[in-house]
Amino acid sequence: MNEHLRVDGARLWQSIMQMADIGATANGGSHRLTLSDEDKAARDLFAGWCSEAGLTMQVDELGDIFARREGSDAKQAPVAIGSHLDTQPFGGRFDGVFGVLAGLEVIRSLNDHGIATVKPLEVVNWTNEEGARFAPSMLASGVYGGVFALDWALARRAVDTDATLLDELRRIGYHGALPAREREFAAFIECHIEQGPILDSAGIPVGVVDAAQGFRWYDITLEGFASHTGSTPMVGRRNALLGMAKVALAVEEIAAAHAPLARGTVGSQVAVGPGSRNVIPGRVDFTVDLRHPSAATLEKMDAALRRACEAAAAEYGLELSLAQISDTQPVAFDTNCVAALERACARLGIENQRITSGAGHDACYVARRAPTAMLFAPCKDGISHHESESAEAADLEAVCNVLLHAALELAGVA
Amino acid sequence: MNEHLRVDGARLWQSIMQMADIGATANGGSHRLTLSDEDKAARDLFAGWCSEAGLTMQVDELGDIFARREGSDAKQAPVAIGSHLDTQPFGGRFDGVFGVLAGLEVIRSLNDHGIATVKPLEVVNWTNEEGARFAPSMLASGVYGGVFALDWALARRAVDTDATLLDELRRIGYHGALPAREREFAAFIECHIEQGPILDSAGIPVGVVDAAQGFRWYDITLEGFASHTGSTPMVGRRNALLGMAKVALAVEEIAAAHAPLARGTVGSQVAVGPGSRNVIPGRVDFTVDLRHPSAATLEKMDAALRRACEAAAAEYGLELSLAQISDTQPVAFDTNCVAALERACARLGIENQRITSGAGHDACYVARRAPTAMLFAPCKDGISHHESESAEAADLEAVCNVLLHAALELAGVA
Repeated sequence: MNEHLRVDGARLWQSIMQMADIGATANGGSHRLTLSDEDKAARDLFAGWCSEAGLTMQVDELGDIFARREGSDAKQAPVAIGSHLDTQPFGGRFDGVFGVLAGLEVIRSLNDHGIATVKPLEVVNWTNEEGARFAPSMLASGVYGGVFALDWALARRAVDTDATLLDELRRIGYHGALPAREREFAAFIECHIEQGPILDSAGIPVGVVDAAQGFRWYDITLEGFASHTGSTPMVGRRNALLGMAKVALAVEEIAAAHAPLARGTVGSQVAVGPGSRNVIPGRVDFTVDLRHPSAATLEKMDAALRRACEAAAAEYGLELSLAQISDTQPVAFDTNCVAALERACARLGIENQRITSGAGHDACYVARRAPTAMLFAPCKDGISHHESESAEAADLEAVCNVLLHAALELAGVA
Repeated sequence: MNEHLRVDGARLWQSIMQMADIGATANGGSHRLTLSDEDKAARDLFAGWCSEAGLTMQVDELGDIFARREGSDAKQAPVAIGSHLDTQPFGGRFDGVFGVLAGLEVIRSLNDHGIATVKPLEVVNWTNEEGARFAPSMLASGVYGGVFALDWALARRAVDTDATLLDELRRIGYHGALPAREREFAAFIECHIEQGPILDSAGIPVGVVDAAQGFRWYDITLEGFASHTGSTPMVGRRNALLGMAKVALAVEEIAAAHAPLARGTVGSQVAVGPGSRNVIPGRVDFTVDLRHPSAATLEKMDAALRRACEAAAAEYGLELSLAQISDTQPVAFDTNCVAALERACARLGIENQRITSGAGHDACYVARRAPTAMLFAPCKDGISHHESESAEAADLEAVCNVLLHAALELAGVA
């Protein structure tokens, strides 16, 4: 059997480092925005590697790349592995890239050992996961999952040049002929760095991701009355900042009430007006972000938030405006895929733990159409979307070995 | 005697309205920045009125105007009455202007009735009270009071044209020959709108101002760690916004502990970073403003603020930076002047109350050299530094009558 089969961790690491040279930043990160010249160079490098590995490449209308290794039964849907090659502005070297190149490393290892699978394997690069140059994020996987319309996605405009996504796909030569939603997968596995501190602080190399949190975003305004800090008595003030302070502390309590999975945050996007040190804050515009893997719990958290906002407004004589601007449903990943990942961990004797994804990933949208799960690798101090993002080669290798064995189980050895 | 003597309230009101036409704004306010063309026009109008009233005008090096009505004993120091003619950007019609034109109305009324005083009377217009075009505020009265150096004041630069104060004084023809600190006053009385809601809400027409609050300003930074709102567990976060929230609520408690005179405010100048709804606030820069008429109480409030900041930093794992950037001492106005104002109220049967000024005024600096006090008139809802600033003609007339009778007592009827 193949129980002693392992990926080449050094080759995986070296490929990640080589990819990081494209758009490398002075502080050790990568700046490779969607459909930029750097993104094209990254795609070309990846395509060259796929070609060397004997894969057949197809590009769809959204620039998604599907690099296929044929199975012994070509009629079966492929087991797909992938993530994204684009980065945040001045982002890290691992976010997304690891998931694509882990897929490539699985193929390379199977090639090395001459192992064929029953189902085909495909390595996938999804276009515009980050959403930094074209909003929203996870655009192409969202079209794939039926969340966004194709035409709407192609008409998104770049924040820098105002060019549409279609314009830029054509400019860099990645507007493919394959219809955007044609691919069908037997399974989809995405490897990713955790982007949080749980695995790193626990010293566990592999997270088996069985769910992704649902989240709700809110735009909130509290409006009081701006007046002089010296001549306005304390009694009778209508200080909007105090209302926001109460809401911020209440949001912390709401999350604590549903520990440990709940998250609740007044985000760092806060505007206090009119903007003078000797004028009482008359207005605060702020945002709230609530997350939980259970839709029912999210609903309770939503109700508690609304009560907290109303109480703060009443206490300080403020007018409240609360708009929920997003309601992203929780994702429960496929139990068979999750089980396959855990069996692979067990076979390899690799320490692992179940984990819920707090961030959005392409896999969350792909899960709407295909059996899907994810693997997380630790990243140092949980830091991501930053040039200092860092991961250990040994951890990435461990995750990639789990991926290899799970893929073999899901695709079947021919 | 002169017990039935009264000012002409209609004339006072009409002069204020005529002055408000200079730099009038679409929304009923005035925009007459220091040493602008509008300020020159206001000074020229005032100078013309002073000339018609038989006053002798002198202008000092800082553009301060002293319009003198001679007394029977010309060797005695004058009783001075005044405030400022400049306004905030898109400010109101009453702030400052009322105090200058109330002085003029006293002179006009004495002229009408042929009443001479023993001491001379002077109506004063101080340059750049507002500080909006040239920082800091109360610049010329501050030089008079020995707080600022003359050369430093003359070298202040305009925020719009970068011209110095001296340049602009020369440009509009108000760089006078009189040395800046030469004037000596037997007394100085400043009438002003309250700029707060106390008199208006109590329905009392006259406030006798016996003190001005000292205030301390602080620049505070709390620095934690910015990370993803979804993938970062609640435990172990270092959320700078929560620290600021605790400080804002603590400042409210600190003021309440020294009610009713204390004021404590986290001002509306707040910056939260890095500025994204799905990133935990890693840093908050904010300001605190503490006020009290007792220096000893201010010292206690200062200590309590520092304790609150340290406690908040410790609770949320934040780094604290606290800089006190200003320490303006409380002012106790002259007891004889205050008593003269109260006796005038009693003689006239005008309802009044003692009040502490929460804002800074020229009188606060003049008080360092001359016996000084102030009178406040109510302004609607306490609103000031705004085009909607509003006052009642009857209240201004009442204040001006108190001023008239107090001035007669202080200057002596010849």
